[in-house]
Amino acid sequence: MDIISFKSNALVLLDQRKLPLKEEHVRCKTYAQAAKAISSMAVRGAPAISVAAAYGYALGIRAGKEKQAYKSLLTSRPTAVDLANALSWMRNQLPAKNPVALAKQWENSVYEKCKKLSMHGQKLIRKNAKVMTHCNTGPLAVGRYGTALGAIAFAQAKGKAPFVWAKETRPRFQGALTSWELSKWKIRHNVVCDSAAASLMKAGEVDLVILGADRICKNGDVANKIGTYSLAVLAKAHKIPFYVAAPTSTLSGLSSGRQIKIEQRDEGEVLEVRGRRIYPKGAKAVNPAFDITPASLITAYVTENGTFRSAGALWKHTKA
Amino acid sequence: MDIISFKSNALVLLDQRKLPLKEEHVRCKTYAQAAKAISSMAVRGAPAISVAAAYGYALGIRAGKEKQAYKSLLTSRPTAVDLANALSWMRNQLPAKNPVALAKQWENSVYEKCKKLSMHGQKLIRKNAKVMTHCNTGPLAVGRYGTALGAIAFAQAKGKAPFVWAKETRPRFQGALTSWELSKWKIRHNVVCDSAAASLMKAGEVDLVILGADRICKNGDVANKIGTYSLAVLAKAHKIPFYVAAPTSTLSGLSSGRQIKIEQRDEGEVLEVRGRRIYPKGAKAVNPAFDITPASLITAYVTENGTFRSAGALWKHTKA
Repeated sequence: MDIISFKSNALVLLDQRKLPLKEEHVRCKTYAQAAKAISSMAVRGAPAISVAAAYGYALGIRAGKEKQAYKSLLTSRPTAVDLANALSWMRNQLPAKNPVALAKQWENSVYEKCKKLSMHGQKLIRKNAKVMTHCNTGPLAVGRYGTALGAIAFAQAKGKAPFVWAKETRPRFQGALTSWELSKWKIRHNVVCDSAAASLMKAGEVDLVILGADRICKNGDVANKIGTYSLAVLAKAHKIPFYVAAPTSTLSGLSSGRQIKIEQRDEGEVLEVRGRRIYPKGAKAVNPAFDITPASLITAYVTENGTFRSAGALWKHTKA
Repeated sequence: MDIISFKSNALVLLDQRKLPLKEEHVRCKTYAQAAKAISSMAVRGAPAISVAAAYGYALGIRAGKEKQAYKSLLTSRPTAVDLANALSWMRNQLPAKNPVALAKQWENSVYEKCKKLSMHGQKLIRKNAKVMTHCNTGPLAVGRYGTALGAIAFAQAKGKAPFVWAKETRPRFQGALTSWELSKWKIRHNVVCDSAAASLMKAGEVDLVILGADRICKNGDVANKIGTYSLAVLAKAHKIPFYVAAPTSTLSGLSSGRQIKIEQRDEGEVLEVRGRRIYPKGAKAVNPAFDITPASLITAYVTENGTFRSAGALWKHTKA
C-alpha cells in the first residue's frame, strides 16, 4: 500500500481522488506540482499531507527555490497544522546537504508516532473482537499505519483476527476508504450504514468502538467527523467501550468543546452523490462536517504516549 | 399532489420510481396493467398499494375478469396485508353495479383513517415546533395525508408553522420523498444526514420526533425502517419525546419485537447509489431493512383512535 513515496527524484502519491475505484499515482517532480497535488486533495489527512509537503519542500530546496517552495506549500492547505510544523522543522535544519533525507527524517518521525499509538491501541482489542469504526483513520490519512485503524491492523498482526464494522460515514462515504484499506490488510470487515450501528450494538455485534480525533480539548472533549457524537451516545447506552485514538499533535489549547466552531460544509455533499442529484429541486440541507463528543462519553484516549482513562491523565502525561 | 386517481376509465398513478427528480404518471386501463404497476413499485406504501389494487380490481370486474384480476392483484406484492384486505372487502360486496364506486369507498375509508390519525397527531406539535422525522410517511406512502407526515401537515394547516428535519434515511434515501412532499405542502424543512441527528438534538434543534411503524407488537415494541431504533435511543438520551404514528392495521398479533425476523436486503443498496458503485471491488455490506424499537423508548402511539401513552392503553382502546 504505497500511499506516499519518493522514487527516481520524484514524490509519488496514490491519487486519493480516484479511490477506491481506481488506483492511480501522481508523480511530482517539482515543489509546484507537490503543492498542486496537496491543494487538489490527491493526498488528504493532516499527517499524510505533512509528509507530502516535506518531500515537496525538499524538491524546491534542491532546485534552489527554498523561499518560493516554502510559501507555496504553506498555503496549499491553510488549516493543516501538521503541514506548517513539517516545513518549519525542516527550515530550522537548513542548510542541508541532502534535503530529501531531511524529509525522510520527518516522514519517519510521523510514522514512528503512529506505530507507537497503534501498538498501545491494539492492547484494547481482544482476540476475535468485533470492532466498530467511523470515518477513515488508516494509512490513507496518515501515510502509513494509521491511528484507530492502525490499532486494528496491529491487532491483526498479533493474530487477534479482529472483525471490523466500517461505518459508511455520510455524507462523504469515508467508509469506502476504510474498506479499501482493510481489504489491503486482509482484515475481515463489513460496511454498514450509519443508522444501523445501534441495532448491531443491541444485537451484541459490537465489542468496542475506536475512532480518531481532529482535536482534543483540555477537558477531554473531542471534535471529530460528524456522527462521532451519535456513536458515542449509542455506545454508552449499550455499555460498549468508546476509544479515541489520535497523536498528541491533535491536543489543543481550547478548554472545552464549546469553544469549537463547527465547520458547515456545502449542502451539495448531502444532496448529491458523485455528481448525481438525489433530492428534488429546491431542497435544502444542513451539512455540519464535525461534531463534539463530551469527555463523559469517552472510555479512554490512545496516543503515542499510551492509553489514558481521563483527560487529566492524558494531559499530565503529554506535558511531562 | 395527485398520487392515485381514477380518471377517464383509468387508474392514474404518480410514478414513484421517477421521483423526486421527475413527476410522471402511469395510466392503467386494465387490471393487468395495475398489477404490473404495483409489482414494479410505481406505487409503494401499504395503504397506497391497497387503494391502487382496489381500482385495479374494479377495472377487472368491469371487464368480466373478476377471478383473474383478484388472483393477479393479490400476488402483485405478496407481503402487503392492506392489499389483501382491500380485495377481500370488495369481493364481499359483489355483485356490484359500479365496482369503481366500491373502490372509491375503500379509498375514502383509508384516507379517513389517516385523516383522523393526523388530526390526533397534530395536537402533539406546538407552534413553531422543530420536528424530526425518519423515512417517508406522507401521501406517497398512503395515497393522501400520511401518518407521521400527515400530523405535521395538519399542524401546518392549523397555522403552527412546524419546521421539519427530514432525515435522509440511508440506504434508500426516503428523505428525498419526504422533502418532495414537504415542498408540495410548502412546509419549512431541511434535509440532514442520519448521523447528524444527535448533534442537532444536543443543540436544542429538535423538539420532538415523530415517525411511522411497519408493525406494532402486543408489548408496544415497534418494527420500522432501519435507523428508527438509533433515533429512539438518541431521543431518550436528550429527553426528547418520541412518537410513533400508524393506523391500527399495523397492530400485530406478535407478543414482542423478539418474534420479528428482520428482513436483510441486498448489499447493493448500501454499496451503490443510483447504480454507481461507491465501494471497492470485493467490499461486503450488511443491509438490515428494519430494526426493533422497544416500547420503553416510545413516548406515545398515535392511531386513528387517538394518542396512547402506553401499549396497554393502545391495545385496550383498539379492541373496544
